[in-house]
Amino acid sequence: MSGDLREAMTAAAIEVDAALDALLPPEDGEERSLFAAMRYATVGGGKKMRAFLVLEGAEQFGVTRDFAVRVAAAVEMLHAYSLVHDDLPAMDDDDLRRGKPTVHKAWDEATAILVGDALQTQAFATIAAPETHTDPAVRADLCLALAQAAGARGMVGGQMLDMLAESAASPLDEASVARLQQLKTGRLIEFSAEAGAILGKASTGARHSLLAYGRDIGAAFQIADDLLDLTATPEEAGKATGKDAGAGKATFLALHGPERARVQAERLIEQAKAHLDGFDARADRLRALADHVITRRS
Amino acid sequence: MSGDLREAMTAAAIEVDAALDALLPPEDGEERSLFAAMRYATVGGGKKMRAFLVLEGAEQFGVTRDFAVRVAAAVEMLHAYSLVHDDLPAMDDDDLRRGKPTVHKAWDEATAILVGDALQTQAFATIAAPETHTDPAVRADLCLALAQAAGARGMVGGQMLDMLAESAASPLDEASVARLQQLKTGRLIEFSAEAGAILGKASTGARHSLLAYGRDIGAAFQIADDLLDLTATPEEAGKATGKDAGAGKATFLALHGPERARVQAERLIEQAKAHLDGFDARADRLRALADHVITRRS
Repeated sequence: MSGDLREAMTAAAIEVDAALDALLPPEDGEERSLFAAMRYATVGGGKKMRAFLVLEGAEQFGVTRDFAVRVAAAVEMLHAYSLVHDDLPAMDDDDLRRGKPTVHKAWDEATAILVGDALQTQAFATIAAPETHTDPAVRADLCLALAQAAGARGMVGGQMLDMLAESAASPLDEASVARLQQLKTGRLIEFSAEAGAILGKASTGARHSLLAYGRDIGAAFQIADDLLDLTATPEEAGKATGKDAGAGKATFLALHGPERARVQAERLIEQAKAHLDGFDARADRLRALADHVITRRS
Repeated sequence: MSGDLREAMTAAAIEVDAALDALLPPEDGEERSLFAAMRYATVGGGKKMRAFLVLEGAEQFGVTRDFAVRVAAAVEMLHAYSLVHDDLPAMDDDDLRRGKPTVHKAWDEATAILVGDALQTQAFATIAAPETHTDPAVRADLCLALAQAAGARGMVGGQMLDMLAESAASPLDEASVARLQQLKTGRLIEFSAEAGAILGKASTGARHSLLAYGRDIGAAFQIADDLLDLTATPEEAGKATGKDAGAGKATFLALHGPERARVQAERLIEQAKAHLDGFDARADRLRALADHVITRRS
């Protein structure tokens, strides 16, 4: 990763962590274990790539920083909720996430279910609040776009396909694998890239370009993730690795092997950058992020 | 129940079921089991009291019927999500709901978790969409109010308190019981009563009166529910009964016994109706509903 990008991503993660800290309920009251677990699952963990996409997208249109940071925090709440639920015993049954015990391990299953539920709600509460934009039409539009990305026809539908694929008699074909990944992880990354354009009331064309950029880096990110799962140690990845191959996970990598997977990821990254052709130098960090997605080691 | 009220509630339930049918994803595609289970959990089940509150609240201000029906459907999605998750083995571990096997029994735990997740998302998607009101400020306001009622400081926080109460060394005192119930079931009923005022851009005073009405009937509803759990058969209630006493559930009934519980519920209903003093004859069904809440047999 270039020094500039690393610095910008670190600064953004710190900024968004501060916003999460301010937005999530403080750890007091009888139900403080819920609040503590919500914080554990979101604040200070992960690379906050989705938040970075929101912030950098918003930069293209000169959006008020405070507005963008709130939406970035909301996207991270939504993402964290999905991880907490995906890690549950009835789902992927993972013990380790971001180098720490998963929420149902550190607390219990009931708490983990409620933490995910409450983080999803808090994401919508954050976006809908007047502090997120002076124009309520922007807030309603953001709520709708996030819900469409995250719901039954988006992220949750993708997780359902993933569950079904694991118990299926025959492996998924390439089209089904692509659709699964696009729903499960792609749609939220698309929304993250697009959100800045919604905040900035950008033209439909600009909004679509950012969404398409998000789609391509999302797909490349997924392939890179699968390659890391194959090659990284659990210490490097901060979670269990090597599980996918054993579980017969439906991935591009499983279908075509590492060489073709790498080529495909590179092709997607070139395509992602091409979607930014109409943007000026303010989009350089988005271009650098695209390159980073397939060269990262964790 | 008076014939008028029964007729109006039945008509509203049919209307909202039709809206749910139109709003939820059709049962096709590879992930159709998710869509089928979402429908199973919402369409055609329950009395749809929360939906009825939305519709009757909206009637007070002449709100476009189609707008109110969408919000009513969204509230029922949110409510259904909470039931599906509360029924999970890690939570209340219930096999029966609305006279049918619970979602994790009819499908499996992973599907039930995802059904709840997706129904919550769909509730926000429904409210945020342009079809729900011409004024985006109303939609953003509804999203925020629903999220505040449903999240960590509302319904989910209440469910967390309920989980903690079950494993606590000593029973909760009256204030803690009241707070638990108000969060767990009260806040969403308050929102349901208040939503019509938001849709109708009513005065703060009128909005608050409806919310206060919702608070009182919600509290009375809870006591009536606990009394039913004590006396009704599983066939009458459509779910397991008699569980609360055995589980040492934190309720007003458990603290004070059936006689004082009945008196308290009646007092709350009188108070609820008093909040409607400033409303005209259009509020008669809300008045009748208040009486029904404590006389119902299921």
